[in-house]
Amino acid sequence: MSFKDFPTLSEKNQTILVERLLQWSLANGLVMYPPNFSIHSANNAPITLFPTPFPKDLFERAVDVQKSFNKLYVSVVANQKKWLLDVIEGLSDFDKDFTGKLYETYTKAVELGGGKIPQPLTLGVFRSDYMYNEKDHSIKQIEFNTVSVSFGGLSTKVGQVHQYLNKSGAYDDSYSNKYYPEADLPISDSVNEIANGLAQGNYFYNEEKESTKTVVLFVVQEGERNCFDQRLIEYALLSNFGIKSYRLSLEQIKQETTINSGKLYLKDTMDEVSVVYYRSGYAPSDYESDPETTWDARLFLESSKAIKCPSLLTQLSGAKKIQQVLTNAEIIKKFLPGVEESELEKLLSTFVKIYPLDGSEQGRAAKKLALEEPENFVLKPQREGGGNNVYKQSIPGHLKSLPESEWGAYILMELIHPPTHKNKIIRNSDVYHEEIISELGIFGTVLFDEDTGDIKTNENAGHLLRSKFSSSDEGGVAAGFGCVDNVYLY
Amino acid sequence: MSFKDFPTLSEKNQTILVERLLQWSLANGLVMYPPNFSIHSANNAPITLFPTPFPKDLFERAVDVQKSFNKLYVSVVANQKKWLLDVIEGLSDFDKDFTGKLYETYTKAVELGGGKIPQPLTLGVFRSDYMYNEKDHSIKQIEFNTVSVSFGGLSTKVGQVHQYLNKSGAYDDSYSNKYYPEADLPISDSVNEIANGLAQGNYFYNEEKESTKTVVLFVVQEGERNCFDQRLIEYALLSNFGIKSYRLSLEQIKQETTINSGKLYLKDTMDEVSVVYYRSGYAPSDYESDPETTWDARLFLESSKAIKCPSLLTQLSGAKKIQQVLTNAEIIKKFLPGVEESELEKLLSTFVKIYPLDGSEQGRAAKKLALEEPENFVLKPQREGGGNNVYKQSIPGHLKSLPESEWGAYILMELIHPPTHKNKIIRNSDVYHEEIISELGIFGTVLFDEDTGDIKTNENAGHLLRSKFSSSDEGGVAAGFGCVDNVYLY
Repeated sequence: MSFKDFPTLSEKNQTILVERLLQWSLANGLVMYPPNFSIHSANNAPITLFPTPFPKDLFERAVDVQKSFNKLYVSVVANQKKWLLDVIEGLSDFDKDFTGKLYETYTKAVELGGGKIPQPLTLGVFRSDYMYNEKDHSIKQIEFNTVSVSFGGLSTKVGQVHQYLNKSGAYDDSYSNKYYPEADLPISDSVNEIANGLAQGNYFYNEEKESTKTVVLFVVQEGERNCFDQRLIEYALLSNFGIKSYRLSLEQIKQETTINSGKLYLKDTMDEVSVVYYRSGYAPSDYESDPETTWDARLFLESSKAIKCPSLLTQLSGAKKIQQVLTNAEIIKKFLPGVEESELEKLLSTFVKIYPLDGSEQGRAAKKLALEEPENFVLKPQREGGGNNVYKQSIPGHLKSLPESEWGAYILMELIHPPTHKNKIIRNSDVYHEEIISELGIFGTVLFDEDTGDIKTNENAGHLLRSKFSSSDEGGVAAGFGCVDNVYLY
Repeated sequence: MSFKDFPTLSEKNQTILVERLLQWSLANGLVMYPPNFSIHSANNAPITLFPTPFPKDLFERAVDVQKSFNKLYVSVVANQKKWLLDVIEGLSDFDKDFTGKLYETYTKAVELGGGKIPQPLTLGVFRSDYMYNEKDHSIKQIEFNTVSVSFGGLSTKVGQVHQYLNKSGAYDDSYSNKYYPEADLPISDSVNEIANGLAQGNYFYNEEKESTKTVVLFVVQEGERNCFDQRLIEYALLSNFGIKSYRLSLEQIKQETTINSGKLYLKDTMDEVSVVYYRSGYAPSDYESDPETTWDARLFLESSKAIKCPSLLTQLSGAKKIQQVLTNAEIIKKFLPGVEESELEKLLSTFVKIYPLDGSEQGRAAKKLALEEPENFVLKPQREGGGNNVYKQSIPGHLKSLPESEWGAYILMELIHPPTHKNKIIRNSDVYHEEIISELGIFGTVLFDEDTGDIKTNENAGHLLRSKFSSSDEGGVAAGFGCVDNVYLY
């Protein structure tokens, strides 16, 4: 197996390539608002000039295993609810302000519902993130995201722009050929597939009837710079399914919505909400402006009959602690009774070693590893949000700065060794040329019953490649460290 | 016949409407570069918040008559060539620097070609512009554009955004209904149709064979703010027909292209050019930076075997003097022998009175009208470009400021009385609320033989509505006085 390096272009041809890339981006919505933006002006989103090589067999493996992961997390949330709640309760001690508040909000909603959440159906729009581990030619899971997964819209666009550049001849220094075989640059259909997931939520909310009378509520951050990624899903929802959508921030929920006989309505229009789609509420910062109002909004929505994407419990199942426990074959067999050996193998093949840093026997051994062999590990906080990982030699110092009772707020994860690739990243109109590493995300949607574990739909929903300079440790695109990319399969 | 006024929206709902409109525009390429732009950042194009009412029967009339106009201009260029050249020669006396230079370049090209232009085939991408004359319920032709007609790309987009807003409920204060019936908001297919015209040029260049080996050369202005309108056509050309395109300015032509055995090639890639599509070269200002290089480029291209869109002669046929002469029924019958009475009637119904201001008997009478009844007229320069019309009471003063020998550089045109409509225009994020008047443009493409008059293809190519404040006299969108709009047919 081998791949072409990205094409060598003359300076003049690179200038033409960059102009084509930027103008295509601006003409096709591959855009973001810049910091301090005006609402009428957008910039190209940071992307790579070229698609990045990724082994075809492992791309297919990642796609193939997605539905199994969807099922596994359904089992965690629905069939293993008591166990999940115990774990979350434990985690809450280490992360009172966020995991603790989510859990507290969940228990309040159960209480308000007289012992149960009023809407048993939940929609998961998940994304499982992997890196290619070159050493053993495998993909290894970085994390499993159960809330507010982003870039489903822009991912489709970056695939299209790389295809366009290839087809237009701009990747070929002689301009006469396509540099990459077209079939090796798959375009993620995530924008349509995620819209499809929301439409399925709408369908099951309406008792398995298609309806364009109920609407989808996007819960968004105020001043969201990545709103076009979300808007693209709204447009697909409207044009593919005729389903309308509204956008409200957590701060606006109580003022703009009302619950009547359990059903959630927009006050102004009295439109009934079938699905609440969270693109906010996933990180502590989303609640900081006005904690009382925003947490109250979350409780309010959870107490309605609208299908949540995701429910509080489903969001909580994305804790890294859960990911850690699920690396155990016996646990998977217990959670997915009757799982076939081949399916189990596929799941297990994606795991690196993940350790707790708690008082258990495994935890005590892990603490030793963290202090003595930190070069092989990354320390990750249990909470969501990115940007707070501690790498390698920095681990011992970081742990020692904390009382040992707080170490349990972290998991210790074996480092993956992805290959670096040459590529160029464009941010605004500046082109950066450094070695990059990439992370593959596979989207999946699953609609299920939290009470019974009954799965209504379980589908693949496209892919995402994000890349960052190999010299940087963090990969959040919006945070400014990375960019959207697409695979060139070899 | 009546129409709905645009919907009354609460302030809150208008804010939501504006946000949806702006974000759809930025996510879908309904954009322009702002003045002093950076290449990586675009603004929403100025458009109306609502579609503007236009009588359905007259819209259909305008669409219906387009192919007849295409034929008429083919006849002017091909069958009445001698007459056309005489008229142009006369006009050149009044407009040496532009019409004169175009004509001189044409004669040089003929000379270089040993008595004829090397490529007899010409592609016209035309746009006939009308206003609705309310008094007699008719459409009246403002002008017939034979070169560099713009907004074929953005017109499709503005139709789509109005449809989206309507479908999303944003035009309905209660958000529950579509305010306009969907069928009454036709989306112009101009982006695909103009690309189709260029593809037909490519097809006939290749002796009636589809080929993706030859390319289309877009001749563009440097620093074009409206480049997305053009790019959209390039994307359609590539994705609908697999035909590649390049962009060069007039200033770059001689350096970047070469002619070999009459054929035009791009030097860097040796790609053969089938069609030269001018989106520059239509106004004197396009030649001002470096007159020698730019006029030389024009001659160079005209002397190649590439099909020009348009040829110099076809561009010259757009002179207002020609438009004036063609308002005569006898002339039309002569130019279109065998024209059916009904077709003739349709053509004639679109004409207002247009007079020359020359030494002819008609010209002498017109001079009297211009000085004595200026309130019924607009004075238009023969040359292209917009922005120099003189209206009503300003006419006598303007004429008197010139020696009478120069009056022939103008035509005197009866004013049309379009209705005003209430609408709102958005520019950046500012919303202006004034009465507007609108101009309907109908696109057409025609591929023909300038030597024989043989018409290979003759097609409709969508529509465009442009609107401006009724208080302003000029309508050039890029010039900052107007905006792109779409029809709501009633």
